[in-house]
Amino acid sequence: MSSRLHAPVVLPCDPTCGVLRDAVVDVADDGRITHVGPAATAPAFDGERRELTGILMPGLVNTHAHSPMTVLRGLGGDLPLLRWLQEAIWPNEAKMTPQDSGAGMLLGAVEMLRNGVTTSAEMYFHAEQLVESALAAGSRTVVGIAVLDLPGMPWRPMAEAIDKWIDADGLRFGPGDRVELGYGPHSAYMLAPEVLGELAAAARQRGALTQIHVAEAPNEDAAQRASHGSVPKLLEQAGVLDGRVLSAHSVHLSAEDIAIYAKHRVGVAHCPGSNTKLASGIAPLRAYLDAGVPVGLGTDGPASNDDLDLFEEARLAALLARVTALDASAVKAADALLLATRGGAAALGRTDIGTLAPDHWADLVHIDVDDPAFATGLDAPDDQILANLVWATGSRRVLDVWVAGEQVVAGGESTRVDRAEAQAAVGAVAARLRG
Amino acid sequence: MSSRLHAPVVLPCDPTCGVLRDAVVDVADDGRITHVGPAATAPAFDGERRELTGILMPGLVNTHAHSPMTVLRGLGGDLPLLRWLQEAIWPNEAKMTPQDSGAGMLLGAVEMLRNGVTTSAEMYFHAEQLVESALAAGSRTVVGIAVLDLPGMPWRPMAEAIDKWIDADGLRFGPGDRVELGYGPHSAYMLAPEVLGELAAAARQRGALTQIHVAEAPNEDAAQRASHGSVPKLLEQAGVLDGRVLSAHSVHLSAEDIAIYAKHRVGVAHCPGSNTKLASGIAPLRAYLDAGVPVGLGTDGPASNDDLDLFEEARLAALLARVTALDASAVKAADALLLATRGGAAALGRTDIGTLAPDHWADLVHIDVDDPAFATGLDAPDDQILANLVWATGSRRVLDVWVAGEQVVAGGESTRVDRAEAQAAVGAVAARLRG
Repeated sequence: MSSRLHAPVVLPCDPTCGVLRDAVVDVADDGRITHVGPAATAPAFDGERRELTGILMPGLVNTHAHSPMTVLRGLGGDLPLLRWLQEAIWPNEAKMTPQDSGAGMLLGAVEMLRNGVTTSAEMYFHAEQLVESALAAGSRTVVGIAVLDLPGMPWRPMAEAIDKWIDADGLRFGPGDRVELGYGPHSAYMLAPEVLGELAAAARQRGALTQIHVAEAPNEDAAQRASHGSVPKLLEQAGVLDGRVLSAHSVHLSAEDIAIYAKHRVGVAHCPGSNTKLASGIAPLRAYLDAGVPVGLGTDGPASNDDLDLFEEARLAALLARVTALDASAVKAADALLLATRGGAAALGRTDIGTLAPDHWADLVHIDVDDPAFATGLDAPDDQILANLVWATGSRRVLDVWVAGEQVVAGGESTRVDRAEAQAAVGAVAARLRG
Repeated sequence: MSSRLHAPVVLPCDPTCGVLRDAVVDVADDGRITHVGPAATAPAFDGERRELTGILMPGLVNTHAHSPMTVLRGLGGDLPLLRWLQEAIWPNEAKMTPQDSGAGMLLGAVEMLRNGVTTSAEMYFHAEQLVESALAAGSRTVVGIAVLDLPGMPWRPMAEAIDKWIDADGLRFGPGDRVELGYGPHSAYMLAPEVLGELAAAARQRGALTQIHVAEAPNEDAAQRASHGSVPKLLEQAGVLDGRVLSAHSVHLSAEDIAIYAKHRVGVAHCPGSNTKLASGIAPLRAYLDAGVPVGLGTDGPASNDDLDLFEEARLAALLARVTALDASAVKAADALLLATRGGAAALGRTDIGTLAPDHWADLVHIDVDDPAFATGLDAPDDQILANLVWATGSRRVLDVWVAGEQVVAGGESTRVDRAEAQAAVGAVAARLRG
């Protein structure tokens, strides 16, 4: 059913981060936005009307997650990246069944929706269960189906399974096109350059996104730099960068590497929480933006970050960029908000999400303002409203969430999934893995 | 009335950050803790018994706040420190009445309590109203009554008023000794060295804490360094450092300065959120800890940070220390938790808060675990419980809070203050200041 949502403040997340007062968002039966603008000048409308307090804005776009890892959350939390992977994560992942991944994804999707994240770009195994869980929660997902090359786990059958799935079901499917399939070659340190090239070619042929980890840890980056000039150079030489490519982390890129990214419009999934917690480094966010590289934010997996809160990533991205530059205007509140919304869509190469605009999917978040953070009032100037949202409120007051026009969170809880059951299912998996 | 609180997990915040399972905290009529330990070996008890789910831990200690600035939250949020002060904050503060400060403090105290912060070290004007509001909310406060020296605002009458107040009412007073009075000379750039020396002498004579901003912004630090060697050297030469001294921010200290702090046991209020947002820099946390300097965490004022969330400061302190050292074990989850609790008490020179131990005040926080962050279960290993609390839960699940044994937050809301009224009062002040 079509509906008109009316709120005191609407943030379309347009390029200027405009603040609309007393405005509406109209949503058609098919789950797409038909109109955004001030109530006073809105066209006639005969669908359902809903009056909201507070702020209405686009759902956040999480450009890098391994959400099924909710079952591993908190493991080895004081270890650096490679030891954390080798000692805490991989031994446990080896014991995870497809059902375990599904249980982890279901809770992760519910958690993200409650935090205002309507889309997540996922990279994990057991993609069928992951898709099933995302659809059950009602979230939108861009799945980079994991491809590795290990003894007993050759890459080619994994790649062929992705080809076949996309060829059978299409690149996007599900209600409101909630699912997009794609390729998830893990990294240049886990796969040979020619394999990366073949995977990217298969993706390109299907218009699919290739998601890959790039230059996350210093030691990983140094090794690739010694052998290939740099990871971006390796990827360029292997023919990976010509299609839709999302480069996760991208912490240790030189100015030359950044120019390669800009030239090929490679999207970056900036993961400041994970990169600081695992001591990987601080990605050169301001340099990416200055070069015109499309940048979104990523939570990374809940075992490395750990709360799947993209508002927190937005805040942290801005704080790190400011203190790195010793310039408090290096990334403003508005910039941080746009990174989490339209920036994320751009990094994924999507033009149908991340912004409130006609023909975009009605992926919406309603922020309640009954909170000390907004005590100074919605009558405050635009920049103060944005400051209160980004610096002081964040995910805490996400009250309602819609994906493709369907309400999937109401009053802070999932409309689709019993959260207690989802938590208990993850608890059972975690207990079994502990053995 | 005496009471025994029984929880699946109790975190006393002892030096090893031990994790007690199935444990109790006993509280006497006078609001002090009488026993902490496993339920199985607890002494006989005939007071009220209360069964809690989740985690019981000490209230957090916020070592640096200007909480009345809730009325200014979000102003000039994209400006660097000195422009932010000069263009956004000071012109508004000049218009604030004592009642405005009281309204701001009341909301700030309620907000902090809801975030698990039971003690805040405050530095602001209109100290009587600030104390009144803290007592109304039921929070504990260590007031550094602001002293400046400006045309028309000479320092001496302000200092004498503090002397008289302490001499009349005592250093600590109120139910559960909730209020401690002290001196708040603003900074070495706002007051002459000899004035700082006189103020610190008055404080020392009364056993009071001197709270002062030190080496926050790079330009401020550079100026003092050129004139006096450094702010710590200036303070040492002026005789400021011999009593109880709390040095807020302390971003730009050299190894030599840190040695001065260690020698005098100067407490540091580390404010990573404010320092990154205002692009002041990253304080050398690990170096402070290695030198044995007592370090606590501070939110700074809600106009500069902005959400008065000390759990967030704990996380950010750890993230910044890790990424600065490129070492994920530089500050662990346990270290971060201790900074926010026992570290804060040590920085304030207090031995009666920050830890669950006999004779300490029963300032307690109950963290509910009905959350995805704890889905992996309370049966997880100790370090995973701490990781889940620090990295994934934070303030979000603070359900109940006690100060000196009195419950001041129940089910996430103040037992003392109508939050909607407190928000409306701040809204009215903010609207008038915008005027």
